[in-house]
Amino acid sequence: MISALSYVDRRIKVLNQSRLPNEVEYEYYDSAEEVAEAIRTLKVRGAPLIGIAAAFGLALATLNYSGDMAELPEFFSQKKQQLASTRPTAVNLFWALSRMETVFIDSMPRPAAEIGDLLIQEALMILNEDINTNRTIGQYGAELLANASQILTICNAGALATGGYGTALGVVRSAFSQGKIKMVWACETRPVLQGARLTVWELIRDSIPVTLITDSMAGYIMAQKKVDAVIVGADRIAANGDTANKIGTYTLAVLASYHQIPFYIAAPTSTLDRSIDNGDKIPIEERNADEIKYLSDKCISIPEVKVFNPAFDITPSNLIAGIITEIGVFGPPFDFFAK
Amino acid sequence: MISALSYVDRRIKVLNQSRLPNEVEYEYYDSAEEVAEAIRTLKVRGAPLIGIAAAFGLALATLNYSGDMAELPEFFSQKKQQLASTRPTAVNLFWALSRMETVFIDSMPRPAAEIGDLLIQEALMILNEDINTNRTIGQYGAELLANASQILTICNAGALATGGYGTALGVVRSAFSQGKIKMVWACETRPVLQGARLTVWELIRDSIPVTLITDSMAGYIMAQKKVDAVIVGADRIAANGDTANKIGTYTLAVLASYHQIPFYIAAPTSTLDRSIDNGDKIPIEERNADEIKYLSDKCISIPEVKVFNPAFDITPSNLIAGIITEIGVFGPPFDFFAK
Repeated sequence: MISALSYVDRRIKVLNQSRLPNEVEYEYYDSAEEVAEAIRTLKVRGAPLIGIAAAFGLALATLNYSGDMAELPEFFSQKKQQLASTRPTAVNLFWALSRMETVFIDSMPRPAAEIGDLLIQEALMILNEDINTNRTIGQYGAELLANASQILTICNAGALATGGYGTALGVVRSAFSQGKIKMVWACETRPVLQGARLTVWELIRDSIPVTLITDSMAGYIMAQKKVDAVIVGADRIAANGDTANKIGTYTLAVLASYHQIPFYIAAPTSTLDRSIDNGDKIPIEERNADEIKYLSDKCISIPEVKVFNPAFDITPSNLIAGIITEIGVFGPPFDFFAK
Repeated sequence: MISALSYVDRRIKVLNQSRLPNEVEYEYYDSAEEVAEAIRTLKVRGAPLIGIAAAFGLALATLNYSGDMAELPEFFSQKKQQLASTRPTAVNLFWALSRMETVFIDSMPRPAAEIGDLLIQEALMILNEDINTNRTIGQYGAELLANASQILTICNAGALATGGYGTALGVVRSAFSQGKIKMVWACETRPVLQGARLTVWELIRDSIPVTLITDSMAGYIMAQKKVDAVIVGADRIAANGDTANKIGTYTLAVLASYHQIPFYIAAPTSTLDRSIDNGDKIPIEERNADEIKYLSDKCISIPEVKVFNPAFDITPSNLIAGIITEIGVFGPPFDFFAK
């Protein structure tokens, strides 16, 4: 299975996802700046993977710190802030950075290199935990599916979005290994086309049957009874179960409800934000209009057109049949989450 | 206002819509073959305009006929069949060809050139009637809208899709002239991007406020209460009001129903097919997979991926608040149509 990020000899080796599937190109980073830029430009994307990458960014910055020890806490804090400011919606980013900060505080006042080593160990632990978490999510999720299931998904909540194996696609992988998957319908996921570029690539590599559709076709194939379950990832889950995920997810949830098809979120508990009561309080990132207007330097509309480009939307928990996590599947009224 | 098709000196002058908005290029046709090819390749598109173009194709073929008069009926029949086989869903094509055939039969046994002249007159009448029809549709539709309305639409049901003025965008134009339009949300309309390329271009030319979104954003902006009505065109309306239109329309109708937003079809009565009881019997064209996989020669996914590419979907009449025609607005249970 593909690995989007690994730690190799005091650097991270990162698959540049902005170039997939046309080019399979790896980059190596050893600074917080490089990692922040890679997150901002979507070379590294997917809520769990963003958290993992940011953890390594912070660890590598500390590992390579050569300044005055007295200024290390301020340096660490600055780098943490730099990484935190890359993208606002996915909470795994803040979760991972907080976890690194706790290790940092507990490790003081050792030498920077030694603290750096401890931070690298923590980042590796976050990475490996994520893979195990996804395998468990996969097992719980596969139990929900009948034989010959047809699954609809959006964006890429796969190995590429995580440490490995994937969340929504982790469920697909587990179910496929049990012979339960007849078809995965991959919404292309405009504007950045993570479905067409990443989900299709990842599933074909694993010989899992996949059909690409435009986002606008989801309703039609549901009406034709070609979808048994919708399974998607999550960027942040509020205490009441309301879930932020890639723009278009909410539309799929409304369509699934109308067609009485179960709609599932698959995500690690690190995606849960108990500090937020409901989805209204989740910040939604608005990205550059050029993501919609241009496709690889070619304008597909008129350069001066006004564009609205929210990267995420909120699916209210009343439209969610279950949230599949590494500690089990939770259903309405999602009161577990508030605890 | 832009004109997508006009008759000039024994030829039709056609705006090549496959090149818009980057190039505003006109082509001239004087044969049925050229017109059929232009329809097949989406240089000419939009249900009413396809009918108009086909009518001229048949008229020009007859006008330029130089063969044996005894073979003219067979020649006419062949050309009619050639034009009819270009696209299966929009019924205006068959409606216009039938109307031309009636004139042809009534004109026999005059000389071909004379019959050709009568057919050109009929095609011009279809063109001009369409423009008047759309202005009337616009007036009826505008009455349904409140001040400061925000309208969501998909594909292009505008001047470019018709003889002029437009159906769904005809309603927008009428309402805009009455100061009622705050914003038009144009769904980009994958895969062929008629929204991003044509609707945006057409509305900006007329200084009507428009914001471009991806198709996947419609649910989100409805949830944010930014849409007062959805208005779309139609390719075929069954006797019970079920309506075929651009793929993605059905999803918008389900979303509108969920958000209690009125969903309107704007179409001339020539789009009504009384011979079909309900939407299940409307043939849905499946187009080439490359429309989804490639964007101007660049593959946006993997060349070998399986793709499903239906060009239309069916919106059941129970999701339609009203069908706006040139003879009035009809609502559920649409029993007018069955008569």
